[in-house]
Amino acid sequence: MELKEMITKYKDYRDRMKAISYAEYMISWDAETEAPINSVEERSKQIGMLSQMSYEIERSEEYINIVKKLYQELDSLDDLLKIEIKKVHKELMQSLKIPMNELVEYSILLSKAHSTWKDAKLSSNYNIFKDTLKEIIDFNKKMVKYLETEELKGYNVLLDQYEEGMTKDKYDKFFNLLKEEIVPLVKQINSLPNQENKLSNRLFDINKQKVFADYLMKVMCFDKTRGLMKESEHPFTSGFGTSDVRVTNHYYEDLILSSIFSAIHELGHATYEQQCDSKLDETLLTGGTSMAMHESQSRFYENIVGRSYEFWKRHYPVLQNLFTEELKDVTLEDFYKCANYVECSLIRTEADELTYPLHIMVRYEIEKMIIEQDIDVNELPIIWNKLYKEYLGIDVPCDKLGILQDVHWAGGSFGYFPTYALGSAYGAQFLNSMKKDIDFNEALSNDNLQIINDWLKDKVHRFGQTKTPDEILNYATGESFDAKYFVEYLKTKFKNIYNL
Amino acid sequence: MELKEMITKYKDYRDRMKAISYAEYMISWDAETEAPINSVEERSKQIGMLSQMSYEIERSEEYINIVKKLYQELDSLDDLLKIEIKKVHKELMQSLKIPMNELVEYSILLSKAHSTWKDAKLSSNYNIFKDTLKEIIDFNKKMVKYLETEELKGYNVLLDQYEEGMTKDKYDKFFNLLKEEIVPLVKQINSLPNQENKLSNRLFDINKQKVFADYLMKVMCFDKTRGLMKESEHPFTSGFGTSDVRVTNHYYEDLILSSIFSAIHELGHATYEQQCDSKLDETLLTGGTSMAMHESQSRFYENIVGRSYEFWKRHYPVLQNLFTEELKDVTLEDFYKCANYVECSLIRTEADELTYPLHIMVRYEIEKMIIEQDIDVNELPIIWNKLYKEYLGIDVPCDKLGILQDVHWAGGSFGYFPTYALGSAYGAQFLNSMKKDIDFNEALSNDNLQIINDWLKDKVHRFGQTKTPDEILNYATGESFDAKYFVEYLKTKFKNIYNL
Repeated sequence: MELKEMITKYKDYRDRMKAISYAEYMISWDAETEAPINSVEERSKQIGMLSQMSYEIERSEEYINIVKKLYQELDSLDDLLKIEIKKVHKELMQSLKIPMNELVEYSILLSKAHSTWKDAKLSSNYNIFKDTLKEIIDFNKKMVKYLETEELKGYNVLLDQYEEGMTKDKYDKFFNLLKEEIVPLVKQINSLPNQENKLSNRLFDINKQKVFADYLMKVMCFDKTRGLMKESEHPFTSGFGTSDVRVTNHYYEDLILSSIFSAIHELGHATYEQQCDSKLDETLLTGGTSMAMHESQSRFYENIVGRSYEFWKRHYPVLQNLFTEELKDVTLEDFYKCANYVECSLIRTEADELTYPLHIMVRYEIEKMIIEQDIDVNELPIIWNKLYKEYLGIDVPCDKLGILQDVHWAGGSFGYFPTYALGSAYGAQFLNSMKKDIDFNEALSNDNLQIINDWLKDKVHRFGQTKTPDEILNYATGESFDAKYFVEYLKTKFKNIYNL
Repeated sequence: MELKEMITKYKDYRDRMKAISYAEYMISWDAETEAPINSVEERSKQIGMLSQMSYEIERSEEYINIVKKLYQELDSLDDLLKIEIKKVHKELMQSLKIPMNELVEYSILLSKAHSTWKDAKLSSNYNIFKDTLKEIIDFNKKMVKYLETEELKGYNVLLDQYEEGMTKDKYDKFFNLLKEEIVPLVKQINSLPNQENKLSNRLFDINKQKVFADYLMKVMCFDKTRGLMKESEHPFTSGFGTSDVRVTNHYYEDLILSSIFSAIHELGHATYEQQCDSKLDETLLTGGTSMAMHESQSRFYENIVGRSYEFWKRHYPVLQNLFTEELKDVTLEDFYKCANYVECSLIRTEADELTYPLHIMVRYEIEKMIIEQDIDVNELPIIWNKLYKEYLGIDVPCDKLGILQDVHWAGGSFGYFPTYALGSAYGAQFLNSMKKDIDFNEALSNDNLQIINDWLKDKVHRFGQTKTPDEILNYATGESFDAKYFVEYLKTKFKNIYNL
């Protein structure tokens, strides 16, 4: 086959798989936001068939051969296709290393694992879940063996899958710095006399919360002609190219901060997606380049922008105007403190900006043991509780509020958690560079987030997946990842809030 | 290939096409109800690829051969598969009769025709559209030639495509009866002194209209675990099997009757879909058996149930309770008259129950001429206007309110319109039989629509597409279609309302 014909063939296969992805995107969006409850069985059947169709293309001899041959001809390809083929080749070669029958068995295991985990969590009974967890762990260890290379061994194989280039050495260095600098700071804040949380035990009308979420879309310059916001049980962002990017939010009458910061967080993800170069839409390179890079953007907007004093100085009057009664005795300073209330709590997803990475550290330590040591699953809750005591100084009263709280391990995700903390740290490193180019605080006080969006578009977003996380960091900040910016940012901010 | 293997192969192909249909169902539901406006281009691209994938299966040599062979072995197939293969074989053989290149050309023509028609309608200028219309007509005449058989010639070919078994002879007999009996009645009512329409020029809060639409879902026993109601520009029903049936509605502040009767109409369609036998879900035989049969159900609920005095005797207090101010001087009798206000108007979709079939008659007469005579497209608006004068006694002031009002011909649909009137007539025939089995009026006054749903489920709905319209009519009413029930129903109802 001529190169030109091979490229055409490749693109045809790719576009077929993309069309099926698009279908899956629509179907799951519908499922998460509005589908009637009893439509689930029909949907599973149809999704099963669509994945099979996509899978058959990806595993067809011709497709595999074309990808291999194009990979040999990388230098003859145009820039975008070159990057795409590299990425596709890497993923395909990895997936071919794992025997088909094992993958099928594993996917059956995972589909059952979800409900087992749910049952275990509901009854706060780790014993229900532990055997399934052991099977999942065993598969992951076996998979690691299949995928190991000269450069990547053990847990590093998994870490690299979620964040290309990140290794145990780098994460260890990062988390050790947090242990040294942030764990003591958290302990210090925790030893202060209890501060009043003025927003607790107040109710906020949900329709007005929605009005404010809509206001936040304007503040963040979200382009509604290319996206929308809806409701779902857990907030999330999904999209297909730059012209269709959707977020969801969730509203609780007694938790106004939840809907506000979920909205800003998801809109942060969405801004990344909407600001990719639209010429990437027809490739496989649109969207965020990695888990941590995506998370860096959502957390940049949620925490660095959204939990700043300057932001609320501008927008708190709008919120107060919506909730005149509810907020009449809550000053801007009170509200700012509530949005940054530090508390050693049990649940990761509800943690504040300062303690959040410590929750991740617990999971990271345990994953290292799980993958690289022969640890007894019976021991895991004990280790979990011990680490929570060590890093956060609290006792875990039950497994529901402990090791059973997250869905990730039940879904077979090991190596994913650390990207959350890494994302926050990337964000602080971007902030440091951004402040050299623009007046960040003025942009916040003047309701001019576009200038921040523009900086991130230029330095991060527009590249989509054409650069690795490390390449983007170097392009945007002039250096590879360095955790010191995050630690400095956290220390300055929270020492200031708590007058330390 | 063994029969068993052939069946397995056939089902695999079918299920692949069904999975793509499911994807298309989800994508178009999204497009009609919430997709961001600038997502249209990406969506078109992906839909294009999905249709191509489905088309490739349907036109693959192996699939065609399997369908042909299974058709030869009909007697060895189980009952459901036998019916399905008959249907699939008929449609496939028909579509194979039309040369591929002509179908492609035609689909390009139709995709352009839609916007040409829209432009023409917007500027009320038939000249913009007439050449395109001529091309569409020419294709349809050519297609008729390809599809003609010993039994079916000319317009009958098209009529049969929308309603199996219906011919020009049968429709002529039906419409002639309407000409004899209904045209004079409409003229008689029209000559009465003008009646006041008490609902005109009043505004009704849209959120309260939505509350009432939700109430109607309960009244009609719509199963929300297997469906939902949303908004769209034009109300419609769509679904996939019995477990996922969705309707939309549209709300105008100044037209409360519009949202009420659109809701009942679409919920009528939905009841048909939800009440099919769920064992048909995995076949191609779920859903309504024909256009007219589907329309018979929506119109049965909208007009025969929803515009009855007994229905409103029960439910008008609920509506009045929602709109205490707006309806305080509107009695039940006033409201009933408004819901059945007869008016010789220009727009089909806004026509009342009595004049509606006359709008269809105009289109039917013109389609007969278009397909079977060599009519000059320049003449069509003149003929249109002449027939409106003849049947409805009104002058058509411009083509926007005349021949350009409907999208159907621009979409290449000839033979579709008559099913609308036929549907209403089927409904009256069902009513006649239903009344022998249940106390219809008592079911309405007692808010017990389930008893009506049950009758229709047993006699019509559960069969899905396993019976032809004629078989269903015979099963449910003991005879083939007879228009006399419709004419009697209309005469009795409207003579009573207008004291004639």
